[in-house]
Amino acid sequence: MMNRLVLILVLLGATIAAQAQQVAVYPTHWWTGMKWDKLQVMVRGEKIAATIPMVKMKPEGMELAPGVHLKQIRRVANSNYIFFDLEIAANAQPGWITLPFVGKKGIKYELKPRRMGNGTAYAKGVTSEDLMYLIMPDRFSNGDESNDRVKGMRDQSLRRDTVFNRHGGDLKGVQNHLDYLQDLGVTAIWLNPVIENDMPGRTEHGYAFTDHYKIERRIGGEQAYHALVDAAHAKGMKIIQDAVYNHIGTEHFLFKDQPDSSWFHRWPKFTQTSYKDQVVFDPYASAADKKLMSDGWFVPSMPDWDQSNEMVQRFLIQHAIWTVEEFGIDGWRVDTYAYNDLPFMNRCNQALYDDFPKLTIFGETWVHGVPNQSYFCENNFEVPFKSNLQATTDFQTLFYGIQPALTQPFGWTEGVNKLYTTLAQDFLYKDPMRQVIFLDNHDIARFYSVVNEDTAKYKAAFAWLLTSRGIPQMYYGNEILMAGTTSPNDGYVRLDFPGGWKGDKANKFTAAGRTAKENQVFDYIRKLANFRKNSSAIKTGKLMQFVPYDGVYVYFRYDAQQSVMCIMNTNDKAFTLGLNRFAERVDGFTTGRDVVMDVKIPLKDSITLQPMTNLVLELKP
Amino acid sequence: MMNRLVLILVLLGATIAAQAQQVAVYPTHWWTGMKWDKLQVMVRGEKIAATIPMVKMKPEGMELAPGVHLKQIRRVANSNYIFFDLEIAANAQPGWITLPFVGKKGIKYELKPRRMGNGTAYAKGVTSEDLMYLIMPDRFSNGDESNDRVKGMRDQSLRRDTVFNRHGGDLKGVQNHLDYLQDLGVTAIWLNPVIENDMPGRTEHGYAFTDHYKIERRIGGEQAYHALVDAAHAKGMKIIQDAVYNHIGTEHFLFKDQPDSSWFHRWPKFTQTSYKDQVVFDPYASAADKKLMSDGWFVPSMPDWDQSNEMVQRFLIQHAIWTVEEFGIDGWRVDTYAYNDLPFMNRCNQALYDDFPKLTIFGETWVHGVPNQSYFCENNFEVPFKSNLQATTDFQTLFYGIQPALTQPFGWTEGVNKLYTTLAQDFLYKDPMRQVIFLDNHDIARFYSVVNEDTAKYKAAFAWLLTSRGIPQMYYGNEILMAGTTSPNDGYVRLDFPGGWKGDKANKFTAAGRTAKENQVFDYIRKLANFRKNSSAIKTGKLMQFVPYDGVYVYFRYDAQQSVMCIMNTNDKAFTLGLNRFAERVDGFTTGRDVVMDVKIPLKDSITLQPMTNLVLELKP
Repeated sequence: MMNRLVLILVLLGATIAAQAQQVAVYPTHWWTGMKWDKLQVMVRGEKIAATIPMVKMKPEGMELAPGVHLKQIRRVANSNYIFFDLEIAANAQPGWITLPFVGKKGIKYELKPRRMGNGTAYAKGVTSEDLMYLIMPDRFSNGDESNDRVKGMRDQSLRRDTVFNRHGGDLKGVQNHLDYLQDLGVTAIWLNPVIENDMPGRTEHGYAFTDHYKIERRIGGEQAYHALVDAAHAKGMKIIQDAVYNHIGTEHFLFKDQPDSSWFHRWPKFTQTSYKDQVVFDPYASAADKKLMSDGWFVPSMPDWDQSNEMVQRFLIQHAIWTVEEFGIDGWRVDTYAYNDLPFMNRCNQALYDDFPKLTIFGETWVHGVPNQSYFCENNFEVPFKSNLQATTDFQTLFYGIQPALTQPFGWTEGVNKLYTTLAQDFLYKDPMRQVIFLDNHDIARFYSVVNEDTAKYKAAFAWLLTSRGIPQMYYGNEILMAGTTSPNDGYVRLDFPGGWKGDKANKFTAAGRTAKENQVFDYIRKLANFRKNSSAIKTGKLMQFVPYDGVYVYFRYDAQQSVMCIMNTNDKAFTLGLNRFAERVDGFTTGRDVVMDVKIPLKDSITLQPMTNLVLELKP
Repeated sequence: MMNRLVLILVLLGATIAAQAQQVAVYPTHWWTGMKWDKLQVMVRGEKIAATIPMVKMKPEGMELAPGVHLKQIRRVANSNYIFFDLEIAANAQPGWITLPFVGKKGIKYELKPRRMGNGTAYAKGVTSEDLMYLIMPDRFSNGDESNDRVKGMRDQSLRRDTVFNRHGGDLKGVQNHLDYLQDLGVTAIWLNPVIENDMPGRTEHGYAFTDHYKIERRIGGEQAYHALVDAAHAKGMKIIQDAVYNHIGTEHFLFKDQPDSSWFHRWPKFTQTSYKDQVVFDPYASAADKKLMSDGWFVPSMPDWDQSNEMVQRFLIQHAIWTVEEFGIDGWRVDTYAYNDLPFMNRCNQALYDDFPKLTIFGETWVHGVPNQSYFCENNFEVPFKSNLQATTDFQTLFYGIQPALTQPFGWTEGVNKLYTTLAQDFLYKDPMRQVIFLDNHDIARFYSVVNEDTAKYKAAFAWLLTSRGIPQMYYGNEILMAGTTSPNDGYVRLDFPGGWKGDKANKFTAAGRTAKENQVFDYIRKLANFRKNSSAIKTGKLMQFVPYDGVYVYFRYDAQQSVMCIMNTNDKAFTLGLNRFAERVDGFTTGRDVVMDVKIPLKDSITLQPMTNLVLELKP
């Protein structure tokens, strides 16, 4: 190809290094036919910048192949990096190009053809038709013991008797249980980050990336991830990847060997973010507080990117696009959303939407208040900054919804009235049906502990989770009553799924391995989750909720085909509910089928409710 | 004038009643030069409809005077009413017109010239430059004992030893204390309703109107109201009237003798509103809940207007305009705002803005949540219904602000962090500076009781009230430590101001009558209120607030002329506050003058704060 290039080369005084050296290229490859067609290729190698010739290019750049132009070669302060800005036109063909000149041969760089199906196997993304299941790969199941420890990596721990160390769970372990999950009613799997975290300790969570372009080898690496995604897709299941734009791990090569001094936020001494989302939208916020919130580090081991740096922006965006295209990802969960530079987040999201119009993107917003949360996603605010994020992890319907509903006495603004009023504030969102609702996750107390291991309350919560608006998300082990709080630390909400390891005393992936109580809850969730799979009313229908009285909250999911009535009795005694008030949704129906028990209940004047239940009735004419 | 009319009269078979009878006309009069120039004149008299001829008018109507046309005569089911629709053109001149034909002479009706100053003496309305003082006229001071009981009125009680009965306070009593209030720093007086409440009991609050066009005689009637308003205006003080559109008293003639069956919401049996504001904006609300909220009655003694009735709408709007023009009102507080028909409220507000462009209008919104509250006023929501109400009574900065700030331990979302986060949500309002902030009112526990009569907390609260954003509102007796809660009933937050009655044991309108503790608080409030009077930073400046740490909340009010730093230490012990964080507002200043103590504090590295204080410092170069 090189013979086609029109080059004006100004050779540097430096000799062009001929010795074979370690050279890494990021992204590792790209594709033709992408909307992201202005590519920043970062090349890293010992003093590599000295081995690249100064190149004077024509305004249109240097043609590396038909439709592929090198527009610019950029140097930074650190000569271990060099950046090639490519433009890949629509007529470019898949194949190899050569970036000038490292060694005598240059660097070969591949442009692949795009995968089918709009970049992802399941172009539809993750929607309210799905049931999401969050898994921390190190803690779910060990499917491949050969990768438990990986030679040369910093954390060589493998101690299941502590919560801090690695336990050996992996992607193969997840893949092994796809049938289990599908049977439960799960349709989409969200994994805590799968990217390399070559940190000295606490590597189980995965939020401290050390190389964006490597899948963590201790969970199986690229091959296992491809295998899992492909296996899931083959079963009609979807995969959601956990993205972290805000920070990396201190052991990331880009932090240890920084391109220049402008890639990370620097402080005279370690300075932590205030974790106060309010400063982002507060009309009265100080500049100092804004800077601290956005530029302060999340924790000492996680340096904070300076996202105002255009080269950082491109590095992060390209990695996001690369990942979705490379693996065929269906959903993209963005960690610590509020801590990022929000205009940059919009740019990231837009770049993903451009190449993957159906991709689902939602952000973590561990904040307090529907205004706070909705500010970070598409909302109905007339404000200078408008987020283009589809949705958030809905902490509000948890903290100010189902949690108080089941743990607080009923009052004017307490108990289930909180759930009611929080949902009433949905007018702030552009599309509440895209919000991700949940009872717990890897950072907070498991819901079974929140309700003091009261299975009646727990089941009522799941009936809500599986019938309310939005995309429901479970956390691994919910179905087998896994408990735990963040005291003494968050490791205790990340315990192993019993049966995920050879030799585990019990295997709770099987009915035989579960206790009677666990099976009761498992069956309850499974029943509702599978009902949900075929319920148009719940998957895509409307919601109508009624003002709660006497601790009883009634809501309906409905469309032209189906009506589902849900009655949450948060009282610890039975209650007789008059049906008159609900005429506008009950008229025309004579019975309600209790979806869990599969019995029919006549819809006459009243229904008698068991204590602490959420009765789910499919209405019948 | 009649000879100028071109009439086509079709005489009814009925004889035109010639006998002198009681005939009342509403509005009692109108004005030329009003934007509200299509007037609905309601005439009430025994079988009066039978005395009016059928009149066929030309399309342009019947000219009653130059520029004054009778467009229509409307009959309703009840023949005790007849309605004349007038149009009053810009060229109409003040004077008397005659409405045909009651008796031989017709009804004389006056069109007055408008008062000067855009309808109100103080065209500017009530703004954040003001300090508002809420008075329940029956409970403040008895300036005229002759009106304590009024012959013929239903409630003849006069018992100061109960909270239920009338106590004899009146408008003259308020007028007598204008100097007292002005000295305290008050610039605007909001009176609980002054309109006739000829109800059998609990008439002290005034919210059950029985004749819109009569000022309550037991507080002095029209004359006393004119006198009070004029006296206040002469001192540069403003008057805010309490408007009630949602309901009236059961003894109102329009309820006892209804024009037809469409003027009030009717239910098979007494049906109370749910008091749930959420149904108004909840995207999931049921029709049944919406109807109950808006059409249910507030209490059994207060029938609910059917505001979808155009004649009702005009009756209410005209009364509002009439009142502001007649008395020269500066501010208009709308009771139970959320319970009204909101499009109708917009129409009311717009009609007032049209004739009184500077009038201040704010609505009572006793709701929970900034989204809930801001929905009812001008906000930054892209939603189908957009309120044109300027502002609300800001229950959020009370319930989720200063109250928890001073009564809850500091926590991530508790204590003064609540105040901070509630103000951060101000981005939801179009103009937060118009919100009316307060510590208590006639419906809720007095703040001195809320803080368990802790004067340190109480003073901290007042320092906040008098320095935060918005229009501060005091409640009568705040300054003399009046206490009381709504248990056993709300009468206990409506106790008499000691000294307002002849023979009261103590006269707390004077320093000599107050205890040392009362004087200390009185002086504290007076000092800050008077400082506020001349503080451009507080009156019209910006607000900047900093993230609270360790229970200490720091905010600034500032403009080009002045900077005021407020430091609220909510800890029960002293605290040394580093000033480094506040550089962007403190740089350039060397000292802060403690506004209350009038001592200068150097602005060096830190300031030592007393326990539970809100230090107000005017910064000096």
